[in-house]
Amino acid sequence: MTNRSLTKKRYRSDEALVNSARRFLQTRRAAIEATLDRLVPRESEPPERLHGAIRWSLFAGGKRFRPALLLAVGETFGARTEALLATACAFELVHTYSLIHDDLPAMDDDDMRRGRPTCHVRFDEATAILAGDALQSLAFQAIAEDEHVDRATRAMLVAELARAAGTPRGMVAGQAFDLEAEGRSISEAALERMHRLKTGAMIVAAARAGVLIAGAGEESLVAVTEYGTQLGLLFQITDDLLDVTATAGDLGKTPGKDLRAGKATYATVYGVPAAREKAARACADACAALDRLHHETGLLRGLALLTLHRKT
Amino acid sequence: MTNRSLTKKRYRSDEALVNSARRFLQTRRAAIEATLDRLVPRESEPPERLHGAIRWSLFAGGKRFRPALLLAVGETFGARTEALLATACAFELVHTYSLIHDDLPAMDDDDMRRGRPTCHVRFDEATAILAGDALQSLAFQAIAEDEHVDRATRAMLVAELARAAGTPRGMVAGQAFDLEAEGRSISEAALERMHRLKTGAMIVAAARAGVLIAGAGEESLVAVTEYGTQLGLLFQITDDLLDVTATAGDLGKTPGKDLRAGKATYATVYGVPAAREKAARACADACAALDRLHHETGLLRGLALLTLHRKT
Repeated sequence: MTNRSLTKKRYRSDEALVNSARRFLQTRRAAIEATLDRLVPRESEPPERLHGAIRWSLFAGGKRFRPALLLAVGETFGARTEALLATACAFELVHTYSLIHDDLPAMDDDDMRRGRPTCHVRFDEATAILAGDALQSLAFQAIAEDEHVDRATRAMLVAELARAAGTPRGMVAGQAFDLEAEGRSISEAALERMHRLKTGAMIVAAARAGVLIAGAGEESLVAVTEYGTQLGLLFQITDDLLDVTATAGDLGKTPGKDLRAGKATYATVYGVPAAREKAARACADACAALDRLHHETGLLRGLALLTLHRKT
Repeated sequence: MTNRSLTKKRYRSDEALVNSARRFLQTRRAAIEATLDRLVPRESEPPERLHGAIRWSLFAGGKRFRPALLLAVGETFGARTEALLATACAFELVHTYSLIHDDLPAMDDDDMRRGRPTCHVRFDEATAILAGDALQSLAFQAIAEDEHVDRATRAMLVAELARAAGTPRGMVAGQAFDLEAEGRSISEAALERMHRLKTGAMIVAAARAGVLIAGAGEESLVAVTEYGTQLGLLFQITDDLLDVTATAGDLGKTPGKDLRAGKATYATVYGVPAAREKAARACADACAALDRLHHETGLLRGLALLTLHRKT
């Protein structure tokens, strides 16, 4: 085989993986949406304004990346979709609460997200604070009450999500580092730490939760932890790149915002070409982490490739 | 026995119960503080400002009513203190997060609490929002990682706390009802619903959690649920009364604030004498709920009496 046909075969194979990952996301989407709908109170149930605000932000057309990842990992290791859905959606509830609070005037002060007014603009600040707070409670409740998973595993999943959401090794710690860095120059190491916590921790934990529910062994957990770590990095770099390169129509928010806000991102700290290389390396490392497993991991590789090439 | 000596005996007995409850609170205080200290990151651990804010609000001299109640109920039903402490403190972590968010400018806009600046005044709004968010995660983590309790029970405790903290039957729902009621006249039924959720739900859940950890049966859970419901009502009425009758030195905050803010409270809606009667009735009902149990419930009666007569 010549070098050229090798490259071509690799390319075709990657494309096939991406397509199968895309099909997976499409087919699981409805179940994720239905589960989210089941996990939060109806808008007609009092207090209506609070529940309206929760649903406004939760059903705003998010990508559902974290739940999809959890499903993909769990199914790769043999778990049934029904046993994965509530925990998968718990990660989305926490993610949504973090967006609501992040958009508040005292935080990033964003008026628009996903092409429509943010929660505190559509409702009010107090309601947005409470909606975020309630979403966090609902997330832990979703796991703790999930009858598809045995109670002992639920406790492990709650611990996993809580560590990833909180501090000192979770999302809120990352946001606190982000606050501290605002308007100051930041080292590459500090940038990596901030993102590893702010977005990485939840993505790693979602991937690990899939392994925990499937009841796969320690070896799988170690490999998936590395896969999730690289995928989280990849997700953040492509997010930063999209802020620089995408159009407003694609993003549903104004691109270039990070740049103008003087925010340290992979694109601004490394420059676009180096950030693109870094993304490709993270994707390759994510796939390499799966090599030591004896499971069929095409879906997880496809998900990494899809993230590398995402347009939104 | 004459009527007079009966009354006297009852009075002495109540006093003895109050004293023994007071001694219980004093002796458990150190263990509660030490556990809280263990459950949250050191101030020296990065991000330092976040952890400083968490500790500023957590160690501000709170009464630790919810953890003390959980310990009292758990020990009444035979649980060891060590098996109760982490869950007890989880309730305090959630309570503290709710105070931090409640004090924010967009909510009650309070500058002082317990005699010193509130979290967003001492730090900043963004840090206060994050400190509250992190405290909620830490609460669920504390339960889920507590090795003194079996994993299946931990899942039940997480569900119990999550329902009590969130919506539609928990604390955040109560705060949303409170927002909706602001500056409007409120029916007695709406006032009761708001308080039953805003403060009652967490108090009932703390009491129930003690029963769950002790592994006591359904009959105990039913009785303690009623006890907790009445105790929560009692706690709220005395809180409202203290706002009207106490001095600033006792409260560590400005009394009369609810009144001036036009807030509906038991004192403003019913008037002080009727609110006092209502408190006495709730205390009696709390004690009556314990009558059907075969356990020694003097401690829990003492706690109710202590709440009825509290000065802060």
